[in-house]
Amino acid sequence: MTRAQLFSEIEKKGSFLCVGLDTDPSKIPKHLLQLEDPVFEFNKQIIDATHQYCVAYKPNIAFYEALGPSGWESLRKTMDYIPAGLFTIADAKRGDIGNTASMYAKAFFEQMRFDSVTLSPYMGEDSVKPFLLKDKWAILLALTSNKGSSDFQTIRSASTGRPLYEEVITKSQEWGSPDQLMYVVGATQGEKISAIRDLAPEHFFLIPGIGAQGGDLELVSKAMNRQCGLIVNSARSIIYASADVDFAHRAGEEAQLIRAEMYKLLQRLP
Amino acid sequence: MTRAQLFSEIEKKGSFLCVGLDTDPSKIPKHLLQLEDPVFEFNKQIIDATHQYCVAYKPNIAFYEALGPSGWESLRKTMDYIPAGLFTIADAKRGDIGNTASMYAKAFFEQMRFDSVTLSPYMGEDSVKPFLLKDKWAILLALTSNKGSSDFQTIRSASTGRPLYEEVITKSQEWGSPDQLMYVVGATQGEKISAIRDLAPEHFFLIPGIGAQGGDLELVSKAMNRQCGLIVNSARSIIYASADVDFAHRAGEEAQLIRAEMYKLLQRLP
Repeated sequence: MTRAQLFSEIEKKGSFLCVGLDTDPSKIPKHLLQLEDPVFEFNKQIIDATHQYCVAYKPNIAFYEALGPSGWESLRKTMDYIPAGLFTIADAKRGDIGNTASMYAKAFFEQMRFDSVTLSPYMGEDSVKPFLLKDKWAILLALTSNKGSSDFQTIRSASTGRPLYEEVITKSQEWGSPDQLMYVVGATQGEKISAIRDLAPEHFFLIPGIGAQGGDLELVSKAMNRQCGLIVNSARSIIYASADVDFAHRAGEEAQLIRAEMYKLLQRLP
Repeated sequence: MTRAQLFSEIEKKGSFLCVGLDTDPSKIPKHLLQLEDPVFEFNKQIIDATHQYCVAYKPNIAFYEALGPSGWESLRKTMDYIPAGLFTIADAKRGDIGNTASMYAKAFFEQMRFDSVTLSPYMGEDSVKPFLLKDKWAILLALTSNKGSSDFQTIRSASTGRPLYEEVITKSQEWGSPDQLMYVVGATQGEKISAIRDLAPEHFFLIPGIGAQGGDLELVSKAMNRQCGLIVNSARSIIYASADVDFAHRAGEEAQLIRAEMYKLLQRLP
């Protein structure tokens, strides 16, 4: 998917919501567990109930790997089920040397047909370059929303005075264009988002942390650019809105509420 | 596996060699491709030919993921086949928030029964802690051997004057002991290994880059500690020593040669 196509979907749907598919068999409604593939069945019903309110799905790859080979089958079926026009994000946070990075690109872009993969920048340029393919996206961790984000990401460089996450954003723009690269920017770091937007005016940001991680939609919307430039993820507050037979219906309602807020914010675009 | 057990295996075998199972269907001998599971068959023969000369195996997870669900089946069969007493490393370079990290720990420690997983430190403490379980190991990226290692790992902190990889080594020692944590230290960065040893005197280092990446065994041996403290990985130069029917025999010969060098170096231990 190109940047123009993504923005067109955002305009069409009045939403920049991404639904995180962090599907955990211990948290899904009990009545699904008797089915052959409970994880896929859960995802299928969540997708049916939410796809009109969101522009992206983000399976959290760890949750599928934790199930062994069958988890990958559930993931593949989920990918096949996601309707055309929805942007797909493999939340994998990979990062390895060139020849290994190429293998991960093959896994997620060819085997699983994702549009994008999240990556850790620690190993630098050759760990990112193999993902910069036509109409595919690398989504690089910049500033994350977890407690440990202050361990290393905010260390200031002695030579530039800037924190590591700003070094990542600045340096990585030499590797790929805003048509290939996005950044993960944690919503709990709201006060820093505007400063990050100044460093990367054209790029899309993937913002986790709305919902269970406690972000604020109004706050993050300050970092919108002309093409919206934001994909905001919500996982647990949507997919686990109910643990009962009405889970999909409740997930749809939650997604619809967030989409209504987003619709209002999108009216501010020129 | 405990640190004492690992050192005991190193002493017993006179080797600190790890064989990297970067198994790529496009590089394995053609006669294997007609078999039902060429990747497992290749690994099986490599293991048969090398296990007496090494103390560890390190499947590079990307190579298995690139094959889709069947790759995970090949990986699981490989794990089941590795003889007891050999240390197993999931070279996965994961790194995500706490609840996701727990899922990766489940994938590699429970589903696949690895002894250890390589991790990226970018997201900090809560991305590492879930891997610090009894008799299991987190192997944290510190200084890697690829070109991109100079993009961020060597940025000096304005407050301490130390490069990022030293900050990682220092800070992470607050999270786990030398019985739970190892560090990845690239062999092409030989001149820095002794300095890193001073920062982490008791820890094991996983050293990639002997062989195809151009490291030097004599040089890295300067970072040995009382319990050896080194696991040196070689992948391509062993497993692809021949692309013909004699591949396993040639892999065994290569492993034996490296083991002979290591045996000599181990005699220097007190």
